[in-house]
Amino acid sequence: MTEKTYPPGEHYDYPLIIKKLLNTPLIYAPDQEIIYRDKLRYTYRDLKDRIHRLANGLEKRGINPGDTVAVFDYDSNRFLESFFAIPMMGAVLQMVNWRLSAEQILYTINHAEAKMILINSDFLPILENIREKLETVKTVVVIAENDEIPATSLDIDTVYEDMLADASSEYDFPDLDENTKATTFYTTGTTGDPKGVHFTHRQLVLHTLSVSIALASYDTLGRFRSDDVYMPMTPMFHVHAWGLPYVATLLGAKQVYPGKYEPEMLLKLIASENVTFSHCVPTILQMLTTSPAVKDFDLSRWKVIIGGAKLSKGLAKAAEDIGITIFTGYGMSETCPIISLATPKTHMTDIDDDTRLDIVVKTGLPLPLVEFETLDAEGKPFPHDGVSAGEVVFRAPWLTKSYFKAPDKTKELWQDGWLHSGDVGHIDEEGYLQITDRVKDVIKSGGEWVSSLDLENLMSQHEAVLESAAIGIPDEKWGERPMMLVMLKPEFRGKVSADDFKQYMKKAAEQGRLPRYGVPDRYEFVQEIPKTSVGKLDKKVIRQMYQ
Amino acid sequence: MTEKTYPPGEHYDYPLIIKKLLNTPLIYAPDQEIIYRDKLRYTYRDLKDRIHRLANGLEKRGINPGDTVAVFDYDSNRFLESFFAIPMMGAVLQMVNWRLSAEQILYTINHAEAKMILINSDFLPILENIREKLETVKTVVVIAENDEIPATSLDIDTVYEDMLADASSEYDFPDLDENTKATTFYTTGTTGDPKGVHFTHRQLVLHTLSVSIALASYDTLGRFRSDDVYMPMTPMFHVHAWGLPYVATLLGAKQVYPGKYEPEMLLKLIASENVTFSHCVPTILQMLTTSPAVKDFDLSRWKVIIGGAKLSKGLAKAAEDIGITIFTGYGMSETCPIISLATPKTHMTDIDDDTRLDIVVKTGLPLPLVEFETLDAEGKPFPHDGVSAGEVVFRAPWLTKSYFKAPDKTKELWQDGWLHSGDVGHIDEEGYLQITDRVKDVIKSGGEWVSSLDLENLMSQHEAVLESAAIGIPDEKWGERPMMLVMLKPEFRGKVSADDFKQYMKKAAEQGRLPRYGVPDRYEFVQEIPKTSVGKLDKKVIRQMYQ
Repeated sequence: MTEKTYPPGEHYDYPLIIKKLLNTPLIYAPDQEIIYRDKLRYTYRDLKDRIHRLANGLEKRGINPGDTVAVFDYDSNRFLESFFAIPMMGAVLQMVNWRLSAEQILYTINHAEAKMILINSDFLPILENIREKLETVKTVVVIAENDEIPATSLDIDTVYEDMLADASSEYDFPDLDENTKATTFYTTGTTGDPKGVHFTHRQLVLHTLSVSIALASYDTLGRFRSDDVYMPMTPMFHVHAWGLPYVATLLGAKQVYPGKYEPEMLLKLIASENVTFSHCVPTILQMLTTSPAVKDFDLSRWKVIIGGAKLSKGLAKAAEDIGITIFTGYGMSETCPIISLATPKTHMTDIDDDTRLDIVVKTGLPLPLVEFETLDAEGKPFPHDGVSAGEVVFRAPWLTKSYFKAPDKTKELWQDGWLHSGDVGHIDEEGYLQITDRVKDVIKSGGEWVSSLDLENLMSQHEAVLESAAIGIPDEKWGERPMMLVMLKPEFRGKVSADDFKQYMKKAAEQGRLPRYGVPDRYEFVQEIPKTSVGKLDKKVIRQMYQ
Repeated sequence: MTEKTYPPGEHYDYPLIIKKLLNTPLIYAPDQEIIYRDKLRYTYRDLKDRIHRLANGLEKRGINPGDTVAVFDYDSNRFLESFFAIPMMGAVLQMVNWRLSAEQILYTINHAEAKMILINSDFLPILENIREKLETVKTVVVIAENDEIPATSLDIDTVYEDMLADASSEYDFPDLDENTKATTFYTTGTTGDPKGVHFTHRQLVLHTLSVSIALASYDTLGRFRSDDVYMPMTPMFHVHAWGLPYVATLLGAKQVYPGKYEPEMLLKLIASENVTFSHCVPTILQMLTTSPAVKDFDLSRWKVIIGGAKLSKGLAKAAEDIGITIFTGYGMSETCPIISLATPKTHMTDIDDDTRLDIVVKTGLPLPLVEFETLDAEGKPFPHDGVSAGEVVFRAPWLTKSYFKAPDKTKELWQDGWLHSGDVGHIDEEGYLQITDRVKDVIKSGGEWVSSLDLENLMSQHEAVLESAAIGIPDEKWGERPMMLVMLKPEFRGKVSADDFKQYMKKAAEQGRLPRYGVPDRYEFVQEIPKTSVGKLDKKVIRQMYQ
């Protein structure tokens, strides 16, 4: 790779590429630390050195621009090195979700046409199972989690640390076209094959810049700046750990990678390394806040973005009660991922604790450069009134342009120039989005959408209700009409009628908490509501019962 | 303009255009205020309304995409409206420096091919002088500074406020190509015609994002966030007031426009509107800090970036002594403009006041995505040792791609893919740039560059020296060698020799404060040093005297 030559008068056409993100931390914080569990501790200077070595090691093993390298690893410095070195060469980083079934993993690696695999030794059994069916992989490099490689039937090329040690620490990373594909991974729905999403250098750079601004320039709860200490707690294989390792690196912040998620190790690292900024799904936070060890730790400097599933007000309060600053972040695999953050606005300086909790459990406000709307059946945006629910659609500079080699699925994703999320929600007067449903569960009445979650939430606030479920039932005039299944608390059985509930819901509509067309006509009292194996309402079964 | 239609599966190719910057403040802070002196106060909602009206008003008067509109105004809400409306239509905003001579103004408007002029009534006499020689201007709209239009021989189309009042508040701003030219203005050197620099939408958006991060994500002195109150004190015609009105708008911060710079009005606005963030040249700051009124104001929340000329340690200390947070920002007309900011790094938490002052008067650290080097005679970067001085060159996503219709001048600006600043400087181990000279004043000895400013600074620290000047004198072997003119303090006359100074400078070189080849051989004792009319050392005259 020789540098392009520029005749006098020709300007340098600066590309938005990942290698440019590394310049700032190497000037601002070259001696800042990057830590892997209690095992490794090095500086940004070392990170740079190792990124160059990794690129040379991969190139020596036949990786060229355009080739895909699949990585199986815990949250680690190796994964961080791969986040940079692989795209910076012009190759594509495939992040492998090792929680998928072996069959799904096999599908994704073959579909992505990965040429090489970097794999943590803990995951070798998965690879042994599928090795013979891999169609494109030529080389396997092992990351030795515990210093030695277990016996394996696989043909191993080398060990990650040896590959780096043997390689030169000078790699001449090219000035790529900013639209070069940088990363890919697969998203799994409930049906069909996993779908490959992918992001370019430009998309990752712009996501990094916008997230940085959203987390530092606005007067929010969750400031993330160069003097914070970052530790991810959503896996790096999952949408680049929300892209935050790129943000942390640009800022030159101290970074802590926890490996496998073990509550004691996580708490120990938070305390010993003074971690101030993390992100995770509600389950992980619940695991920590309910861990007996938690009372021994001061978590009052810890800020956590919660995503991946709805943050309940109860969990938000429990977290705040032990001193944690907490708020929702929202996004999808298709959106790189961050779309919105749920923090109070600058002018909301005198809100009380309860109002703040109501805000932090919302889906949130759009990041700079993000646009979202909720669309009606004709594809027109609903008013931002906090009730009118429609499919949530996005525009941003960092949305996947397609599902890889799946044009039919891409046609469902991108319609009328908007990325269709498959989620249903509404936007309030302040601009906060609230996701209320999945499109497939929503009730479609007379061209309007009624959120089943909204109906269930309202019912849950009635003193007589133990549990409820909302579904749409076929209706000649309206297409569908909402109907409620209601389990009463034992002491209220026989004491409230369907009409009582109808009046209750009408009143809610009058208060603007529900659109008028959303008031259910029918209320069925039941002893039990069908559930799935994981305890969620089984809407499919309920719909079959009443249709 | 009809919206592009997207067939299913086609993604929205998000352009980096100025209209996208307006979305965030309208969601985060629609009721935040924008203020013009003590005359006008409105919200971001009104700003949006007026931007749409302005575009409709201009379109009605024949402005089409690609046309240039020249604006003559003080720092005002009208200028802010023009910053957005004109480029958002696809037209080009020309910012006119009304401090230039009428002849130069005429040149720039003709050269830019401006089709229309928006002009503050205070500047009508300038326009009257040049009206007949304007080649492309078809329409003149007057901004009535004092509610009424003075009698004029000009053919006025309408008054700005009437144009807005008569126009629709809905304009369908197109999704432009991000490489569309957005703004232009002219930079004047000591010789030759003014040169037209110009910036695209993409360049302004990326400058805005990077400046936002530099001012909020790093643990610097000069935090600028959504809860700050912004007031420019470098003119909006001068490189878009350093691009900071775009940053302030993205953040949804309160903005205060002071009109003409009058010390009392500036101080009054700072106090009454709680201004926390500004930028200006040293002269303006000096004017304020030495104003008798200053003692009546609490300036302890005020942060100020100083640029345009060197911030002296003395002025920095005087400003800090009255509570102002102060630091240097550096850039050029050609660089949009911000390249660097001089703030301590995150890890420099325990520096003393004097060290902090030494840092804030440096040229600074590069913004995210900015690269700079100092080059030797072969075009190779010098080591970052804090002494080796060479021409300072830049790469960033927001540098002017050319001088408009001036290919020969562009060939001097862009060489080997770097923008050549014409400044000489060095970079220290921490990455801080220090500009020390202009290329034309530097002393070129044996292929190495010696900064005349560095030599003068060192001499100024010798107890016997009242004033000194360094120049290069022709030398057969080395090309040039540095020589010092020295004015001694009266009490030291006849008591120190040229050799004493040579030993002194050699010692400085041994301490790493000067390259060895920079030690001057010759020291001439003089009674007076030639100065220019504004009191600067007149190097041209001095060189003539000794060559």
